[in-house]
Amino acid sequence: MTANPKQPQITLVGAGPGDADLITVKAIKALKTADVVLYDALVNEELLCYAPEAAVKVYVGKRSGDHTYSQEAVNQLMVDYATNYGHVVRLKGGDPFVFGRGFEELDFASSHNIQASVIPGISSSIAVAELQNIPVTHRGLSESFWVITGTISNGKVSPDLYDAAKSRATIVVLMGINKLAVIAEIFKSEGKSKLPVAVIQAGTTADEKVVVATVETIVDAVTENSIGSPAIIVLGEVVSLHPKYQLTKEIYDVVAKG
Amino acid sequence: MTANPKQPQITLVGAGPGDADLITVKAIKALKTADVVLYDALVNEELLCYAPEAAVKVYVGKRSGDHTYSQEAVNQLMVDYATNYGHVVRLKGGDPFVFGRGFEELDFASSHNIQASVIPGISSSIAVAELQNIPVTHRGLSESFWVITGTISNGKVSPDLYDAAKSRATIVVLMGINKLAVIAEIFKSEGKSKLPVAVIQAGTTADEKVVVATVETIVDAVTENSIGSPAIIVLGEVVSLHPKYQLTKEIYDVVAKG
Repeated sequence: MTANPKQPQITLVGAGPGDADLITVKAIKALKTADVVLYDALVNEELLCYAPEAAVKVYVGKRSGDHTYSQEAVNQLMVDYATNYGHVVRLKGGDPFVFGRGFEELDFASSHNIQASVIPGISSSIAVAELQNIPVTHRGLSESFWVITGTISNGKVSPDLYDAAKSRATIVVLMGINKLAVIAEIFKSEGKSKLPVAVIQAGTTADEKVVVATVETIVDAVTENSIGSPAIIVLGEVVSLHPKYQLTKEIYDVVAKG
Repeated sequence: MTANPKQPQITLVGAGPGDADLITVKAIKALKTADVVLYDALVNEELLCYAPEAAVKVYVGKRSGDHTYSQEAVNQLMVDYATNYGHVVRLKGGDPFVFGRGFEELDFASSHNIQASVIPGISSSIAVAELQNIPVTHRGLSESFWVITGTISNGKVSPDLYDAAKSRATIVVLMGINKLAVIAEIFKSEGKSKLPVAVIQAGTTADEKVVVATVETIVDAVTENSIGSPAIIVLGEVVSLHPKYQLTKEIYDVVAKG
């Protein structure tokens, strides 16, 4: 019991794609005033050093196949900690509002009359390809980009992927590596077998791996290179700008002729 | 003349959407070692303080109607400064690879055998709506988002907007405020007159203004509120999550009935 308890407060903070230096100054300021940090699986743990030593740090990480806490449990934890400790920083991989269920967390906090706000993070959807020198937009190749989740709540591929395969946009698929074969089939059925594709595992981290190929050859290339989750998939002519693409194409053309 | 001239180097750096605290640690580290900073119109000038006092700071900003330097001139300046001064930081609004012609600058540097790299920035395409509590994705409302430039090099609206109006994605249009009436017509012709729309001017800065309406009413709402460039347009059911939207809808319903 204290005469002057701390005001409950929740800040959703985007931790960026992995590289600890891709955190913003605004995020660091929030971490410095945290009483509690609730952090996800894909968050770089080096970032916890910005929080006071005395702050409570709780791993609530989920990634596919490892649901440590349900979303409902995370929401409740967040509110309970804020009520009892004060400022909770909810540190989330990438950007909190890109497939992060961040709005649900903000909404839950508000419904409990707890002041809540969000600090954007560098999103993998743009930055992971970028740091491989693949721009999501480029004059003459792509005037737009479309970011889609690979798997929706029913476990199927998103129906948006069927529309995406018909479009001229650069397509970026997050959480889709386990659906790569299905995604490749969708693009093939639109006559896009030769469309360049990149798959990037663990972008911006020490485990980063990249494979570039075409819709036709990407599944084999990913298998050969043992690419696994987390990974992003980029489909579009912009992938042809990657230095490995020209090389891959030359080898493929030789094999095709041979 | 010096016996040990500095190695020419170019770093493209994303400055984020406006708020100076939305810069990354990695960007600050690059600025601290800059000999020259070439910066754009939409960059917050407070960020220049991270560069050494002795560094040359050159405004090369373009925004619509104010083409201070052509892209070719900027490319050449960048290479000339790197050759003569050492490390050039090319500081660009938002993210360098989102409609920023960043890849062209990187490519130009490489073609002059100058070591060049890119540091992602917080992109307005996600963060500006986010800081208005509008998530680009939200379970049950949107499983994807599609980012499109409002105006392409021939001055027309992007043909991608016609496909976008048919999709279920959240649509984010950058540099499209001058084409708002045309964009609204495209969505109306797909039967989407009642689709929620937000227009956010100068997001994350002191000049920020937001208007929420529907495809049918957005042009009038933007005129009444004197919203101008730079602004982003968000079209999609996720906009209904904005607190102003419910209010707007109630007033509209009363007027429609009256």
